[in-house]
Amino acid sequence: MRFTRAALLLAAWPFLRADEGMWTFDNAPLKRIAAAYGVTLDQAFLDRLRLASVRFPGASGSFVSADGLVLTNHHVGRSAIQQVSSAEHDYIKQGFAALTRDQEIKVPGLELITLVGMTDITAKVNAAVKPGMSAAAARQAREQAVKDLQKAEQEKTGLRVDPVVLYQGGEYWLYAYEKHTDVRLVAAPEEQIAFFGGDPDNFTFPRHNLDFSLFRVYKDGQPYHPKAFLPFGAGVKAGDLVLISGHPGATSRQDTVAQMAYARDTMLPFRIASMERQRQALLDYAKTSTEAKRLSSDVIFGLENNLKRFKGFLAGLKNAEAFARIQKAEKDLQAAVAQDPKLAEAKGSWAAIAAAVSKEKAQLKETSFIDTRASATLAHALTLVRLPEELKKPEAQRLREFNEANLKATKARLTQPAPFHADLEAARFAAGLQEALDGLGKEHPFVKALLGGKAPKEVAEAAVHGTKLGDPAERKRLLEDPAALAASTDPMILLARKLDGFNRAARKRAEDEVDAVYKEHGGRLARARFAVYGKEQYPDATFTLRLGYGAVAGYPANGTYTQPFTTFAGLYDRAWGQGAEAMNGAWALPPRWKEAWKQLDLTTPFDFAYSCDTIGGNSGSPVVNAKGELVGLNFDGNIEKLSNRYYYDSATMRAVAVDARAILEALRTVMGAPELARELAGK
Amino acid sequence: MRFTRAALLLAAWPFLRADEGMWTFDNAPLKRIAAAYGVTLDQAFLDRLRLASVRFPGASGSFVSADGLVLTNHHVGRSAIQQVSSAEHDYIKQGFAALTRDQEIKVPGLELITLVGMTDITAKVNAAVKPGMSAAAARQAREQAVKDLQKAEQEKTGLRVDPVVLYQGGEYWLYAYEKHTDVRLVAAPEEQIAFFGGDPDNFTFPRHNLDFSLFRVYKDGQPYHPKAFLPFGAGVKAGDLVLISGHPGATSRQDTVAQMAYARDTMLPFRIASMERQRQALLDYAKTSTEAKRLSSDVIFGLENNLKRFKGFLAGLKNAEAFARIQKAEKDLQAAVAQDPKLAEAKGSWAAIAAAVSKEKAQLKETSFIDTRASATLAHALTLVRLPEELKKPEAQRLREFNEANLKATKARLTQPAPFHADLEAARFAAGLQEALDGLGKEHPFVKALLGGKAPKEVAEAAVHGTKLGDPAERKRLLEDPAALAASTDPMILLARKLDGFNRAARKRAEDEVDAVYKEHGGRLARARFAVYGKEQYPDATFTLRLGYGAVAGYPANGTYTQPFTTFAGLYDRAWGQGAEAMNGAWALPPRWKEAWKQLDLTTPFDFAYSCDTIGGNSGSPVVNAKGELVGLNFDGNIEKLSNRYYYDSATMRAVAVDARAILEALRTVMGAPELARELAGK
Repeated sequence: MRFTRAALLLAAWPFLRADEGMWTFDNAPLKRIAAAYGVTLDQAFLDRLRLASVRFPGASGSFVSADGLVLTNHHVGRSAIQQVSSAEHDYIKQGFAALTRDQEIKVPGLELITLVGMTDITAKVNAAVKPGMSAAAARQAREQAVKDLQKAEQEKTGLRVDPVVLYQGGEYWLYAYEKHTDVRLVAAPEEQIAFFGGDPDNFTFPRHNLDFSLFRVYKDGQPYHPKAFLPFGAGVKAGDLVLISGHPGATSRQDTVAQMAYARDTMLPFRIASMERQRQALLDYAKTSTEAKRLSSDVIFGLENNLKRFKGFLAGLKNAEAFARIQKAEKDLQAAVAQDPKLAEAKGSWAAIAAAVSKEKAQLKETSFIDTRASATLAHALTLVRLPEELKKPEAQRLREFNEANLKATKARLTQPAPFHADLEAARFAAGLQEALDGLGKEHPFVKALLGGKAPKEVAEAAVHGTKLGDPAERKRLLEDPAALAASTDPMILLARKLDGFNRAARKRAEDEVDAVYKEHGGRLARARFAVYGKEQYPDATFTLRLGYGAVAGYPANGTYTQPFTTFAGLYDRAWGQGAEAMNGAWALPPRWKEAWKQLDLTTPFDFAYSCDTIGGNSGSPVVNAKGELVGLNFDGNIEKLSNRYYYDSATMRAVAVDARAILEALRTVMGAPELARELAGK
Repeated sequence: MRFTRAALLLAAWPFLRADEGMWTFDNAPLKRIAAAYGVTLDQAFLDRLRLASVRFPGASGSFVSADGLVLTNHHVGRSAIQQVSSAEHDYIKQGFAALTRDQEIKVPGLELITLVGMTDITAKVNAAVKPGMSAAAARQAREQAVKDLQKAEQEKTGLRVDPVVLYQGGEYWLYAYEKHTDVRLVAAPEEQIAFFGGDPDNFTFPRHNLDFSLFRVYKDGQPYHPKAFLPFGAGVKAGDLVLISGHPGATSRQDTVAQMAYARDTMLPFRIASMERQRQALLDYAKTSTEAKRLSSDVIFGLENNLKRFKGFLAGLKNAEAFARIQKAEKDLQAAVAQDPKLAEAKGSWAAIAAAVSKEKAQLKETSFIDTRASATLAHALTLVRLPEELKKPEAQRLREFNEANLKATKARLTQPAPFHADLEAARFAAGLQEALDGLGKEHPFVKALLGGKAPKEVAEAAVHGTKLGDPAERKRLLEDPAALAASTDPMILLARKLDGFNRAARKRAEDEVDAVYKEHGGRLARARFAVYGKEQYPDATFTLRLGYGAVAGYPANGTYTQPFTTFAGLYDRAWGQGAEAMNGAWALPPRWKEAWKQLDLTTPFDFAYSCDTIGGNSGSPVVNAKGELVGLNFDGNIEKLSNRYYYDSATMRAVAVDARAILEALRTVMGAPELARELAGK
């Protein structure tokens, strides 16, 4: 082996960009931070930050007072705020602030967790593998060891214990969580100021979003005193070191060059074209009447938001310099694998993945078009048709959505009331069927089966106007009455029966020929990478607690340099400069904010941009200074950052946070809750 | 001929984008405006707008009060403001406002002109061409006719009369101008607020520039009462029709596809690489000391500004959709030419131009590198060496810069004092020589002659440190003493003697083989275009008065929609959000503006974006509403607009104006000149 470990470590450096990484708390990049920012952090700092960090369902938050106040984003707390609203009290629209503790509103079912213990069980798990075991037996032995250790830890601590696999099997951990089940809503601004700028400003900076909400954890009916909390600090300035603690969800940074090139050249352009087609169908429909325009506007905005995301992914992959870095990293790993017999299992993995990419490409149209074609009622029909059949099978053989883990949600979706607008759905369904016809051709068995030689529009309109499945009561009836379902001649049920087999076949082919290969060989490459670079690299995001570091910083954009901070003055500039009518009122101010500029300290920083490496799941993460004081609340990234799903680049990618000072000023001056501001400021 | 005129007119429409065009006042697009905006403008409107328009040297302005106040940009008035400043009174830095008329400061030499008469002499000029005349004789007959008519008009009116050739010979006009020679400075804000955001924000939007200055025209010692003026109006809102009257300088929109593709694929990347090389040399030099950093910072900023411009040109040409439109327009014109025997002279012109493009490409390195290589003293030396020789020749045979029209300026440049920093110049010159060596190779005769086998750095340092030409007195001495010049052994003079012949040869080759072809065949294509489309098209910009129309409008950028207006609140947001230290203080506020936010009406619109088709020379142009009231003062465009040198696209290109309301509010609240605000508001 010609590569020494030291040489490889040096080789690893160029791939890690300044401020890159979603690091585990056992492997915090303290040396990198010290080298880059001249700041030395210690274990006590890390422990306090970890213990103050809170996980929300799908997102992050933190304890911010000795009396259990929890800070997260408005968009993270949104469903809880919605849940405790009523017809008279629309807290989403009007905002909410508890002036006394007895006004705080319990959110039934909301559960938060804190990471209180981390145990490395890698050695024990690997010890379960005995010499001579087959690969399958080894995998099973490891799984069993993890299960046993998890159970033992759970019994010992009485805590929730989750196994965590890092570096795709390079390390095994048990994370122990304290659960918080009495969570009460304390304060939230109006959604219109939390999400100021709406979908157009989403994923962009400069930004003016007061995207926060406050909850309080109670224990035994009393405010909970957390093991650690983050007091609000005096604020940051450009260039200051900041750290973020939160739960990044998932990244695709370990994909091979073949996978990324496929995403760039085929998959993303294909998805974008498909979305643009749906958008055009919706725009055409919107032109038919004022009511049609109103009904379709949310769907159109949602689609445009998704288009923006996908175009962001694509733009990032088209960055030639970044792509060259990705290629270089792959070449280096290939060279290391070629020279180390211990890494032999990964030797053929690039080729295996490339072959699976070719298959994915060949299957792309079928895996994309053989589905419910944007018809919500057809989706319901398909679930109804499949349910009895799936429930007969053993768990392991069922389609994913009928697993025990997903079954409840699948059934709930079926009976949940949702608006059904026949004309809108017919327009979308017809566009979807037309796309399948154009893409697969009229001789394709699926197309022939669904259209039966008729025009897509005709089929769509007949089915949508003929079905009763737009009514949740009807869906409930068929769900509960298998005989009625079996006898049903509802046109959507008829279509679902035709679709079922085609869709199963396409899914199975993709799972067997593509996904299974990616999983197996992606795992081998990950293990090789871990063998070569070890913990000089951070593991893929796994929605477990991670640490990021960086600086408050503007960036080059729009021909100039974007300001690192916005201020309350900027909020009003944007509102007045856009006008209340622009883009469906995206920049309209809620009533009590309209004149508040006369009272607010307009110099107060509002949002700021910073170079930490974050991704979905980091919403609501605390941003702290080197003293561990809360200076910001992460809520989004700039448009350049969309592509950090694939790679990170500190030159232009920025996370975006609400400045802590804006939260205090808003609580004091607009939301009429100076007491809360005092609690946050630790006074 | 299969194309009917009506069909061609229809065919012409798609090439003209909404709001496109720099229209002559005799051919104002009133029907297009009425169709697009439902607003009917009449001849009186046009006459008043034209008579209120003023031409500054290289730029535009307008009469804005009955007492002869003239409004233009700060950057247009800058040299005049500089001229009347003194050591005690730095009006550039501190701003200026005359509180009474006797405080208004005369600017010696400043001359403004107003277009008071337009005479179409096309028929008379064409009548001078007799049947059977050769092409040369016809050209001469036309030129003589223009001269005679100009002289007669001048004698008749006593006015300045300029001949104007439109549509490259499609039309001939005489434009008669009234001259204003007593022009006094009335008010100007601090440059730091006029050019807030500095070079970084230059060519961008959102913008916060108070880029205005006020002058007053006097006649016989009394304020002049102009024939027309534009009173300040109540302001515009998004979507409102606006019109602009000014003097766009030059466009390249009639270039052929071959020329544009050459600019996109070869010339612009080449120039950008060359500038980046110079920038790198300057950055390296800047690292050598604090003084070096200080000395080079202006040059670096200037280079970066130019880089931004060139990258803008390039980005525009890389817009595939726009390029396809340009190709389509060329194909359509080719089809029309192919079918009309009367247009036969243009038939071979595309091929002739394409051949010349190949030559330009082949010559690119030599025409670029065989010059004075960024050395100002070598440039002075070359002028000195050439002057005696050139003055012996008849006017027509001289190099352009020694023509009667340019000779005075050429000599003035020679003796004008300018800072000479030997180390800075040596660094730039060395980089320039190195570029020539790398590009042409060490065997190239020019490289051999200049370097004599030595390293570029050695040659540059010896020449720069050995020359006395950094001193204007020495240049004056050699200019006035031909014998001393002939005997000089100054190292830069020696280099200039070597350079002279190579440079002349390269210039001549480019002029004969490239420029002459472009002129001749570009003219033929222009005449064909005029024959086919007539005045449905606007003529190329010629720095004569033009009318543009459009609407106040945001545009998609940065992942969202840019606000059409900024406000005074935005000025402070930008200043506070960037910080006073960022980018050499680009966003620092002048002292009296720092606290002014407490007095200013922050809701006041500051700058706005609008879709009129403008280009360099339009600086200072009045922007008026449909009532002919002044609502804005044009000063720049957004980054997307840089490429409108080649084509126009109303989807993203925006001109940028100071809002008239910002000027009034600034005069009243910060500049202490409420009287002027009252005069502008017509009160």
